[in-house]
Formats: sequence, structure tokens, C-alpha cells
Amino acid sequence: MRRQQRVVIDNVQPQLDCGEFFIKRVIGESVHVTADILPDGHDVMQAELLYRHEDEKNFETVRMVHEGNDAYSASFQVKKQGFYHYKLKGWVDYALNWQHGLEAKLEDGQHLKSELLDGIQYLKFLAKKVGAKDKELIKSWVDAFQDAGKYDEAVKHASSKTLHDWFIKHPQRILANESSTLKVYVDRKKANFSTWYEFFPRSASPKPNTHGTFKDCEALLPRIANMGFDTLYFPPIHPIGEVNRKGKNNTVDAKDGDSGVPWAIGSKHGGHKSIHPELGDEKDFKRLVKKAKDLGIEVALDIAFQAAPDHPYITEHPEWFRKRPDGTIQYAENPPKKYQDIVNFYFETKAYKDLWDELLSIVLHWVGFGVTIFRVDNPHTKPYYFWNWLIGEVKKDHPDVLFLAEAFSRPRVMQQLAKQGFSQSYTYFTWRFSKHELTEYMVELTQTNMKEYYRPNFWPNTPDINPYYLQGANESMHLIRYALAATLSGNIGIYGPVFEYMVSEQLPPKEEYLDCEKYEIRHWDWTIENGLTHYITKINAIRHQHAALQQTNNIQFCGTQHDNMMAFYKWSGDMTSQLLVVISMDPHHLVQGTVQFPWHDIGPTHGDGIKLIDLITDQEYRWHDEWNFVELYPNVPFHVFQIIKE
Amino acid sequence: MRRQQRVVIDNVQPQLDCGEFFIKRVIGESVHVTADILPDGHDVMQAELLYRHEDEKNFETVRMVHEGNDAYSASFQVKKQGFYHYKLKGWVDYALNWQHGLEAKLEDGQHLKSELLDGIQYLKFLAKKVGAKDKELIKSWVDAFQDAGKYDEAVKHASSKTLHDWFIKHPQRILANESSTLKVYVDRKKANFSTWYEFFPRSASPKPNTHGTFKDCEALLPRIANMGFDTLYFPPIHPIGEVNRKGKNNTVDAKDGDSGVPWAIGSKHGGHKSIHPELGDEKDFKRLVKKAKDLGIEVALDIAFQAAPDHPYITEHPEWFRKRPDGTIQYAENPPKKYQDIVNFYFETKAYKDLWDELLSIVLHWVGFGVTIFRVDNPHTKPYYFWNWLIGEVKKDHPDVLFLAEAFSRPRVMQQLAKQGFSQSYTYFTWRFSKHELTEYMVELTQTNMKEYYRPNFWPNTPDINPYYLQGANESMHLIRYALAATLSGNIGIYGPVFEYMVSEQLPPKEEYLDCEKYEIRHWDWTIENGLTHYITKINAIRHQHAALQQTNNIQFCGTQHDNMMAFYKWSGDMTSQLLVVISMDPHHLVQGTVQFPWHDIGPTHGDGIKLIDLITDQEYRWHDEWNFVELYPNVPFHVFQIIKE
Repeated sequence: MRRQQRVVIDNVQPQLDCGEFFIKRVIGESVHVTADILPDGHDVMQAELLYRHEDEKNFETVRMVHEGNDAYSASFQVKKQGFYHYKLKGWVDYALNWQHGLEAKLEDGQHLKSELLDGIQYLKFLAKKVGAKDKELIKSWVDAFQDAGKYDEAVKHASSKTLHDWFIKHPQRILANESSTLKVYVDRKKANFSTWYEFFPRSASPKPNTHGTFKDCEALLPRIANMGFDTLYFPPIHPIGEVNRKGKNNTVDAKDGDSGVPWAIGSKHGGHKSIHPELGDEKDFKRLVKKAKDLGIEVALDIAFQAAPDHPYITEHPEWFRKRPDGTIQYAENPPKKYQDIVNFYFETKAYKDLWDELLSIVLHWVGFGVTIFRVDNPHTKPYYFWNWLIGEVKKDHPDVLFLAEAFSRPRVMQQLAKQGFSQSYTYFTWRFSKHELTEYMVELTQTNMKEYYRPNFWPNTPDINPYYLQGANESMHLIRYALAATLSGNIGIYGPVFEYMVSEQLPPKEEYLDCEKYEIRHWDWTIENGLTHYITKINAIRHQHAALQQTNNIQFCGTQHDNMMAFYKWSGDMTSQLLVVISMDPHHLVQGTVQFPWHDIGPTHGDGIKLIDLITDQEYRWHDEWNFVELYPNVPFHVFQIIKE
Repeated sequence: MRRQQRVVIDNVQPQLDCGEFFIKRVIGESVHVTADILPDGHDVMQAELLYRHEDEKNFETVRMVHEGNDAYSASFQVKKQGFYHYKLKGWVDYALNWQHGLEAKLEDGQHLKSELLDGIQYLKFLAKKVGAKDKELIKSWVDAFQDAGKYDEAVKHASSKTLHDWFIKHPQRILANESSTLKVYVDRKKANFSTWYEFFPRSASPKPNTHGTFKDCEALLPRIANMGFDTLYFPPIHPIGEVNRKGKNNTVDAKDGDSGVPWAIGSKHGGHKSIHPELGDEKDFKRLVKKAKDLGIEVALDIAFQAAPDHPYITEHPEWFRKRPDGTIQYAENPPKKYQDIVNFYFETKAYKDLWDELLSIVLHWVGFGVTIFRVDNPHTKPYYFWNWLIGEVKKDHPDVLFLAEAFSRPRVMQQLAKQGFSQSYTYFTWRFSKHELTEYMVELTQTNMKEYYRPNFWPNTPDINPYYLQGANESMHLIRYALAATLSGNIGIYGPVFEYMVSEQLPPKEEYLDCEKYEIRHWDWTIENGLTHYITKINAIRHQHAALQQTNNIQFCGTQHDNMMAFYKWSGDMTSQLLVVISMDPHHLVQGTVQFPWHDIGPTHGDGIKLIDLITDQEYRWHDEWNFVELYPNVPFHVFQIIKE
């Protein structure tokens, strides 16, 4: 194949796996596109970035800037949800090249003749592009270029900025080369900034030993809203299987009255599209969703694509499940372990298209109730391409819907799910607690290409994870973990009120909760206020008021002179919001040390130092040096300094 | 789109730009393919590498090995020239998964019933694949699996290695996923190992002030062969333009008798397919090529796609050149500089297909004379895609032909030419002379993906480059530079006899030779023997006898305790040839220090230490420690230790 272009385009970034996956952004963010673009020889080259929203017909263009060593860059901002397409174009710009060569010769003192005649073709092209007034002017230049008597005038026009700017504005793009088209999917801002609260609806009753209802949940909404949470996540709200139901503390046989595990979905009362009869009915649920919305809270449901042995699907669609040779349905296993309260879907079934359609319809069913966020249970035990298809199908008509992947698994598994389309993902945060580990992990998340597609959601605890260092830990430890999550990550969540009431008794020897709500109904006094409820409220308010905390990737770690003092600088894309966060990692002792303010990057140009306000205490400070003394007491083990521009 | 596969394949390496370019190997080398391959869930997965030569119909398969964290690898060896295609396949292996689960349950003490019945389908598949005798055996196993009275026997077979091996040998590959096909181009070994000597034929006469001939070149062949060179490269051998001919030392006007610049090709005596009349005729050239071949030398010609103003093409094909507005042909320029003895081809011409065809025919013309290596002059001033097409076209029918890119330009330019197909490339070696610079450069060449497509050719000097540090330098400096090139790189070359006779007078202020042969005929006494001719001969002989030096990428730098002592370990792919090279960087002083032998990688397992033979002096050594004393005198500033396996 013969290609006559002279420009080559190489290594376009950002891209994932040769464009197989799209990168992610939220409304208002930018995509900074780079590539190596080069022609043969030394002619002047130009490159541009082209982008358009999928609903637009024409591409916008942005001229690229040369960063050196043939690397070019340009950015575009994404303003609407949906897909944007972007690609690059490069060409040898004969007009600019002509002008450049002419200027070099003039500087060398050469007299020009054929060079001026050579330029006429470029003027003629321009004349076709400009308005009538400029067209006349350009025609006069054409005359001057051919008139030896008008040499000085001709030369002046030929090397003018006016002409240069016209050439930039109206490129001919002869023999341009183009890169292949890449895509970015843009979500609403909630995808990058969300503050989750999880509790079990059945434990929401103000009366002990009583199954909670959606009405009881409504009564808790003001508390959750006041604490500054904007996403309320429920474990599955569907009927729970009665066959092989599990008992308290994960025992194999339930006793009478045991409530079973919400993730063992399906019974004679219905399946994934039904509501557990003791929680309420569809009207109750709709009212709850609406009341939550009025308080600025989105209700998030749990998608758990598995079935209890008495789920209606088992008898209605046996072809969606694997049968054992004796004809019975194959329950979940991870040999030698057996999970007899759960049956997995059989994705290798020949009837997979019907199965996929039904699972999609489950999601759309709840979307129809006004649910716009789903936390997906163990997505890594279902096929990756299935999720890609399902998420894509939902977002075609419901672009607001977000999906959180709950996959605690190997790195490539978690990354693959994010690439395949999950809007947010749980992370290893729960097991990272030293300064070094956290810094290393944040660098991985925000400086490798994970930053293009993986939106972390930091959870200090979940119903499945009672971290060792929180077991029996004091209030300071809990404060530290919440502050770390809430300042490092735009998306965070806690499992309450277990977290803020520090209910951390363990089911030994693992990171499991004793008498866990997964297996039984618990009763909580939701009115208790303590240091945690106070500071969670304060920190959540800071998150909502300061854009620097409403994103994750713009973070820079600052030097400190104490192993137990962690400091980092965060900023919003437009730099209007800048924070310096300093957190102690020691829940028992006073920590004192110096912190290295990023003076060379954002230090003041005047001599009055930099003004800071600690948003936790409202105290003001003025720092005049690069290194500054900071102390943190266990009872309030963090500063969140707003950096004030003066 | 709905894809039912469960396995995903990510990040296949090696690959260049999503498969747009092929990687390179020579006969006998291996391609080590890696990728992240993972299924959902925890079922047993298998992955295989598939490869085939372009002439073969079927793919060979190699089962991949899990390296941890979902990374898999496998290798294949390339044995023939031409393209190999390779790709990966991954699948959930239901048979192995069944056996694995069954073994876990047995270990847990569980009694199996349905598990055995479940396995029958896998036995039945096997029965269709194995020979008659094994088929009978498997049928008996099927019976045992269904017979409660044969439980122990059934369980023994079910968990047997025999069955496991059968499953590996005959995979069902249900719902397998496949990566896209990538390509590797395999050259003959000369592409990776060549020792070049360049001289000007017109300076080959034994008589002063006499234009050399091909016959004179023949007389020099034994000298060159004895010194161990296998590639003899000539600047262009075509008629030289008389119009605007350059004079000595690059002056603009030639005087009568001035011989002009060989790269200003074309006159009334002919163009690129003709021979300069003073060099000889076609018979002379053919005889030279043959005689060289008999001595183990390939003659390499210079491809310079440009024309003197009196080249026949100018009048025969004016459409292949750019005209100035006054109708005259545009000569080469890099404003404000003018090169009026050269006219460049106009690659933007509408007649570019004819132009490309003609340029290809030039190369094929000389291939017809038995020429199999071309050094291409300034390829970076001609379009990249043109070279891609030309090299591809030549190698279709003449796979032995090799192309060396002489592009001293920006890194991305040089890399692009190599990606587009050049077999070898000049490098920055000529300007890298401290230990640190050379180490850093070698790491870039051999440990980044340049190792997949860029074959460096190290030249201590060229007719265009008289490096500052060689100007007036002593013999030791020249020995050091030759030893560095010859041990670091599989491909090397020198411009002689300027190099070995240390003719380094400069044309100030640049790195140019005074009275350079580019602009005039020189006369040399080719019989002189000195330290350089002696050691060049010795080192070239070592290169030809030791495979570790016949390649570039297998290199590991060793610690030394002296800034002017450089040490590195090199090995052949099959590890039969291993060398430790130690070179002094100081041409004036004795250098003494210790060198860190790679004891932990290749140290001996017995207690007698490691035996080394210095191939330069034939002296034997035995080292018992990791760090060992070495001294280097300026007169022989290198050791080339052969590591002897005992």
C-alpha cells in the first residue's frame, strides 16, 4: 500500500488497549491529548486535535503545541454526558514553511525573488477563505509580490504576523495524516464525587427485635443528610431464600426466626424484581426514594446476580442454571467449600441471550423506580463482557446511572472490570494504613493509566470487612481512617452505624464482624452523637464546599519529617480550590513535625507568606517558609488547610 | 455486541503501536510473548501461544506458564526468514477445573458421587481424541465412575496424573478468546551481526593523485578480510554531477580537476543505475562483488535518493522535481543555507507512483548485481511511508537484502525509520563516551522496546563525523573507541583507513575532517600496520568466534569501583557463549579497580571459583570472589574474558 503522507503520528495518549476501552471523565474535566508527531525532513509541520460529542456532526479543532522532541499536546474540555470522539491530524504546512524559509533568508541578508513568486499560491488559497475586505488586501499583496518596484512592501507583508495568523487560521492541510478515533465517556459529576452511607434496612427499626421497614428508613434520612452523605446504599431489598437459609454468624442451618442473608435472593415471595415483604411494598420504596432525593440523597441498590435455591427463576428458567448429573441444581462452590444457600447463574448456557436480557431488565426495573446508582456484588464472578454489555445498554437510555464494582480481588481483575465500564470501584484502601502504603497506592491510582479509567471509592469498613486495625480501636483511629478516605478520594463510603459507633467486635480469626448484620437483625440507637458523628459531619461539609476534595487525581504528596505525619496538596482542575491536608497516623500520641509546603509550585510571589485556614477549627495561619511546624493531637488528628490566594 | 467468552486477554507483548509495525528478530532468536490473561471467578484457565511462519498453513501451539498476578508467558523460536504470525488464546478449561475441584474435595475428606458423574463428559471427549488402546482404557474409567462398587478405582483415575496430562494434551477450548494477530519479521543473522569497513573507491589507488578503480578495490580485499571485516561499504559509485560541483573542503565552486562529491549523483555519464566511468565498468564491479564474496565480504552500496542538477532524470522526468516559479529546478535548501549541487526529489508530485517505482528499480538494479546490503543516505529527509513500501517490496523477493538507515536526527525520527522497516540504524554512539553516557544509552537500546525493532550499528567515525575526542587523540583512545563499539554492539563499522591510521585533522570548528575524501581524492599507504590494525584484527576475530558478541540485547552491566572502568557481561541466547568485558575509559593512565562479577546469576556451584580466559592475551585467570582486581594499561585498555563453564 502506498501512502503519500509525510507526517506520522505515534503513541497517542490517553488510550487504553489500542482503543478497545474508552477512558472516563466527568462533566467539566479535561482530556489532555499527547502524541509524537513528525514529518520527514525539516519542513514546518502543524498538528491539531479534533473532538466532538457523539451527538454533534462536526469536529471542533484545537491546534497542538510542540512540547519538544516531537511530542505535541492539546486539551479539550468535556461539557456533556455521553461519548466524545477524539483524534489527531498532522500535515506539512507548506504556507508556514514558505514563510519560515523566507524569513530565514531575509535575516541572512539574501535578496528574494522566486521566493516571493512562490508565495503567491498560498495567498491565492487564503483569498478564497477570508472575507471580502481581506480578500482585496490579499490581492494587492499578490500584485506586490510580482512587482520588483514594490519589493520592500512585498517583503514586509510576506514576513508579517498578519499573514502568519491567516495561515494558522486557514490551513490547507495538504496530504494530512490522521490517527484513529478514540473515545472518552463522560459521566455526571457524581461519578467522581460521592459520599456513601450503608446500613441494613431491616435493622432500622427503633424497636429492638423488630424487622425494620422502608418507613423506618425514611425516619433516618434526616440524620444521614445532616451528616453530609449523598448516597444511601442498601444491601439487597428482595425476598430472602428459605431453603438452606444461613443462621447467625454464618452458621449453616438457620433456626426458626433467623432472618437469613439478604444476598440469598429469592423465595416464594418473589425474586430480584420483588421487595422483601417485611420491608414494605413498592409504594413505600418509591416514597423513600423521593424523600431521600428531596434531602439531596440518592438511594443506591445492590445488584447481586445469584439466586437462593427457592428463587422463582429456578423453576421458571432451569436453563439458566447448571444441573448436576442427578438433575439437581448446582449450588455455588469453591471446592472444597460449599455455599448451599446460593445458586449461581450459568453464563455458558445456550440461552445466554435470554439470560442477559432478563438480568438487564432487573436493573431497568429499579431504574424505573428512580434508582440511579447500583453497587454490584462480586462482579468478578460473572463474565467481563456481560458487564460491558449491560452497563452499555443501561447507559444508552439512562446515562445518569452509575455502577460501583465490589470486587476485592487481584489487581488485573479489578482493573479489567473498570475498563469494561464500571463507573466506580472498591479498592485496596481498606488494607493500606501506613503512610508509605497509602502514598504508594495513591501514586498507582493517580499517576499510572489507572487515572484514566478507574474511579476509586474508599471504604474504611464494609459488612464483609472488619479490618484488624479497627478491631477494638479507639475513636482517634476511626477518625484517622475516615479523614484519610475523605480527603484522599472523591468517592468514599462507610458501613454504619457500625463505623461511627465503633462496633468492632470480631468473629475470630478473620476480619469479620461478630453477630454481623449479614446474618441477623441488629438494633441501633441512631440518636447517639460522639466525636465521630461530629467530625464525619464536619469533614463531609468540607468535601461539599471545596472542589479540591471532589476529585481524586489532582494530588501531590508533601514531604514531612515524621513517619506518622502524612501531608498532601490537592487542587481542583481550575485551581480555584486548593487544600493542604495533614493527617496523623498515630491514634495514641501527639505527633509533631514539619511539613514541606509546595513552595516552588504555588508559593506566593509577594513577601507576606501564604495564608491558610484550618477548615476543621477555623483557625488562621500564615506560613513564611517552605518547611512549617505542625502538631496533631489524637483527638483531632488532622488539619485541612484551605490555601487562600491573596 | 454480546460476547460469551469469560476469558479476557490484555497487554500482549511484544507489540509496536497496536500491531501497526512488526517486531524484528534474526534466525535462531526467540520471541518471548507475555500478556495478562484472566477469567472471571476462580475456574481453572489455560492459555496458549499460537505461531506460524507465513508459508505455513497451521499454527503451532505452546501452552503458556503463569508468572503470577495473571501474567502469562511463552516463547517460540524463529527458524526461517520472513514473517511469523503470533497470537494468544485463553479459555476456561472445564475438564481441568472439574479435576481440580474433585481433588480439593477428596483432600477435604468428602465422598464424591455427582462429581464423578460430572466428569464423564470430559472422559467422553477424550475418548474421541486418543488412540484405540487409550480409548478402551478411558471407556473402562467411564464405567468405574458410574459404579459405586468401583469407587476407589474411580477416584484414583479421576485424580491421576495420566488424566491430567490427557486433559492438557487434548483441550476442548470451549468459548476460547483470542487476541489479534501480531507479526515478527525474521532476517538472516547478518542483520544482527556485521562488521563494516568503509572507504572511498576513488582513493584506493596505490599511486598518488590517481583516481582509484574497482580493480584497485579488489587489491585491498585481502587486507580488509584479514582484519576481520565482513561488509565493505562504498559511498555512491555513480557519475558525479558537473554542474555546481563542490570543491575541496566543501567550497562552493570546484576547480578544474576537482572530483566533486559522490553524493551529488548524475551527469551526462548517467545516473543511479550507472557507474562512475573512472571507477570502471559493470564487469569490473561484478568481479569485485564476487571476489569479495569469496573472501567472506559483502559489498554494501550507498542509496542516496537525490540528484545533481545535470542528472538525466532532471530532463527526462521534470515532474519528479519541484520547479521554482521561474521554471528552474528547485535545488536543496535548508534556509538560509543552499545546496546547489543537489536537487531533491519532489515526493508530493502527482506522479509519485512512477517516482516510487523508479526508485525501487534503482535498488533492484544493484540487487541484480549481487548487492545484498544498502546503506541509505539521510533517509529522514524522505517520507517514512515511502521507505516502508520500498523495503517491503524489495524483501518480498529478496529477503536477504538489508538496509542501514543513516539518520543522525532526533530520537523519534530515528525510531520511526526503524519501525518502518530499516534493518539496522546508525546511533548516538559516536557522541557517547563517558561510562555513564554509554551505560545509559545501552540500557535505552536494550531494555526499552527499542530492543524489539531497532538494530543499532555503532560507528566510532564516519566521513561526516570526526568526533572532537578523536581529533588529535592517541592510539589508546582509538583502541578504546573500537573496543567499545565492537563489544557493546553486534553491528559496527569504521570509516577507514582514516580511523586506524588516526588521520584526525579537523576542518574547524566542527566535527569535520580536513581535506575530507567527500570533496577530493586522497592517497593512502594501505600496507601500514600499527597497534590499531593489530587489535582491530584481534577483536574482530573474537567477534567471529564468540556468539555473545554477535548480538546486542543480552547485556548486563557490572559494578566497578572506578569511574573510568566499564564492565559488562554478555551472553548468547543459548548461554553457550558468555563473556565479561572490561574496558578502560582513560587513554593516558593505568586504571586499576575491582569489578563485580555477576556471581549470583552465573557464579559456580562448586568451590573452585570461576575460570576466565582473556581472549586478548590468552592469559588464564581464576576468580574466587564476587569483586575482583583488574588493571588496564593504555596500550591495551581492555580485557575480553571468556567465562569457562566447568
